[in-house]
Amino acid sequence: MVDLPGETIFSERADRLRPSPIRAILNVIDRPGMVSFAGGLPATEALPAWQGSVPKGALQYGPTEGEPELRAVVSAQLRRLGIDAPSERVMILSGSQQGIDLVAKLFVDRGTPVALESPTYLAALQVFRLYGARFLDLGDDGLRDARLAYVVPTFSNPTGACMPDAERAELARRCRDTGTPLFEDDPYRELVYDRCERTPIAAHMQGGSWVYQGSFSKTFGPGLRLGFLAASADLFERLVILKQAVDLHSSRLSQRIVLAAITGNDWATRLAELASFYRTRRDSFEQSMRLHLAGVADWQTPGGGLFFWLRLTSGIDSRPLLEAAIARGVAFMPGEEFYPGEPELGTVRLNFSHAEPADADRGLATLAQLLRDSARDGA
Amino acid sequence: MVDLPGETIFSERADRLRPSPIRAILNVIDRPGMVSFAGGLPATEALPAWQGSVPKGALQYGPTEGEPELRAVVSAQLRRLGIDAPSERVMILSGSQQGIDLVAKLFVDRGTPVALESPTYLAALQVFRLYGARFLDLGDDGLRDARLAYVVPTFSNPTGACMPDAERAELARRCRDTGTPLFEDDPYRELVYDRCERTPIAAHMQGGSWVYQGSFSKTFGPGLRLGFLAASADLFERLVILKQAVDLHSSRLSQRIVLAAITGNDWATRLAELASFYRTRRDSFEQSMRLHLAGVADWQTPGGGLFFWLRLTSGIDSRPLLEAAIARGVAFMPGEEFYPGEPELGTVRLNFSHAEPADADRGLATLAQLLRDSARDGA
Repeated sequence: MVDLPGETIFSERADRLRPSPIRAILNVIDRPGMVSFAGGLPATEALPAWQGSVPKGALQYGPTEGEPELRAVVSAQLRRLGIDAPSERVMILSGSQQGIDLVAKLFVDRGTPVALESPTYLAALQVFRLYGARFLDLGDDGLRDARLAYVVPTFSNPTGACMPDAERAELARRCRDTGTPLFEDDPYRELVYDRCERTPIAAHMQGGSWVYQGSFSKTFGPGLRLGFLAASADLFERLVILKQAVDLHSSRLSQRIVLAAITGNDWATRLAELASFYRTRRDSFEQSMRLHLAGVADWQTPGGGLFFWLRLTSGIDSRPLLEAAIARGVAFMPGEEFYPGEPELGTVRLNFSHAEPADADRGLATLAQLLRDSARDGA
Repeated sequence: MVDLPGETIFSERADRLRPSPIRAILNVIDRPGMVSFAGGLPATEALPAWQGSVPKGALQYGPTEGEPELRAVVSAQLRRLGIDAPSERVMILSGSQQGIDLVAKLFVDRGTPVALESPTYLAALQVFRLYGARFLDLGDDGLRDARLAYVVPTFSNPTGACMPDAERAELARRCRDTGTPLFEDDPYRELVYDRCERTPIAAHMQGGSWVYQGSFSKTFGPGLRLGFLAASADLFERLVILKQAVDLHSSRLSQRIVLAAITGNDWATRLAELASFYRTRRDSFEQSMRLHLAGVADWQTPGGGLFFWLRLTSGIDSRPLLEAAIARGVAFMPGEEFYPGEPELGTVRLNFSHAEPADADRGLATLAQLLRDSARDGA
């Protein structure tokens, strides 16, 4: 960043501004021939095309909470999942990243203890850090001191893991017992490839404080920037006021498009086809991994979501390898970036949804060679 | 707001959360027969309808700064206005309200002095207050101590005033001399009805720190939630990182729709027709005001924008009158809400763009009667 001479004094939180490593990577993945496992992009061919018309009314200002019809549909879905979410406590978001900002704004000052998984969603860590959070572990004693618990229990980013049901109920109980508000971030729920019990933790939060959020980015398309949240009565109205201050309301056009899509006759079919498409992609990706990465890394097969999480057998820090990988035409996300504290070295997140199978195979071969070379050089 | 028993501890800034008075009003203006002069809504009949199709690519994730083509078009427009804004320093926003949040996040901690006009845009006051700003006057010594100067120089909300050119140049000079970053909020520029010199203040900020923002809400339609900012090199990249943390990027669909509209052959015609439509509305509104409000209030004819600013001859506080007005079927904005500090009593903001002329006339007659009654009762 350029600094002019002068006396510009930024806010205290601006001192904690750091460019995202993903952002830096996204700037290079458009290069011809680059195979990227780095982002969390859906397959472009799996996105819907859309055509239609927009009446004048949809271009007028609208309610901060969102279009009533869309809130009602989301409410019905959440209630089927067991969440106490009447329409009046559902708000449409400009993407679920916005929900993280709103919740952080509501809870986090400099030094506020936030309990979360390790590793966890990088862009959530960035937002919490910006507001000054210090991080505690979700397990053990962390919850006792935390003022907020953040969790991505279903096909987690970055690990792809799905938290077992008993653990979910237990976490909810501990949040309620300690009076810790739960913030459940659930964007990958519908991208499910294997049987996986996944009742929202929020469904166990009766009597407690909670925010549950989801996204239309994975099921419809991220380019519209649309998500939603529901929250307990003690939090909801505050979040609405905060949302009003940041963008008044979310795009009404996007809301109408998504409403039409998810209430259409073929939505269930689309979800099933989408899961099938990504399941196939996951499986062919894993086949290539077995071929190229056997002995180089270990992993679990994720039951859903968009990522494989690798542990390198060499245990070497993957961060310094990224530049060399990009030079060879393949991008990945160093797993070390996803840790709130001291990272576990030798971790890598690979997105399997975006690259086509032949490209993915080529990229994995390149990556495997690089990892072998580095392990040998490092030894 | 409902508080559950328990120990939820919110952030320090959450103590300053206040529902917007406009928000409360917007909840009642949908009642049948209600005439609202309260919001800043464009006339729905002046909004464009839209139809078209969206390719899959537009539904993928996109760059935080916005679509390159749209940034280039905005850059060209800003350069024609004299602003040093190459495309690389133009960012598309999810409405210009988002720009206020980003700039406040960058500059404002608890106690940070922010210089601004009095009265000024209510939702900006709310955001600055939320982050903990204390307010200084833009004139006199205020700028010497301020860490940010916020101004709506062109057809200001709420007063409709257009800052004279000499004053603009002088304000820029003082910002540069004192090293105070300038934040120029310019959403009403294109809604111009009478000749009015209005070179952006940012065009005079060479060598200083500045953010200039505009909106597509008034020219295209607010429902898409799309605006833009340009900034000096010392601020721009920081604002991009902040934007990434709040919503990754703005809707790509909205960006494509606006790009197609503003680069279309008929855009200049649309702007001219829009100005003509609102000029007619302003004039018929003022005719009704002369008829009903003579002796009750004084005002200047605004050369652009969406508002008349009234000073009641009685000088009575307009805030307690709102409830009675709504009960009689007419909504207005108490002017007292727009003051950063001690308000000037007996001020009222009337939106002239939304209500149809016959409704506006009826509403003004009702409002005038109420104001007369109140002045008499208060005497």
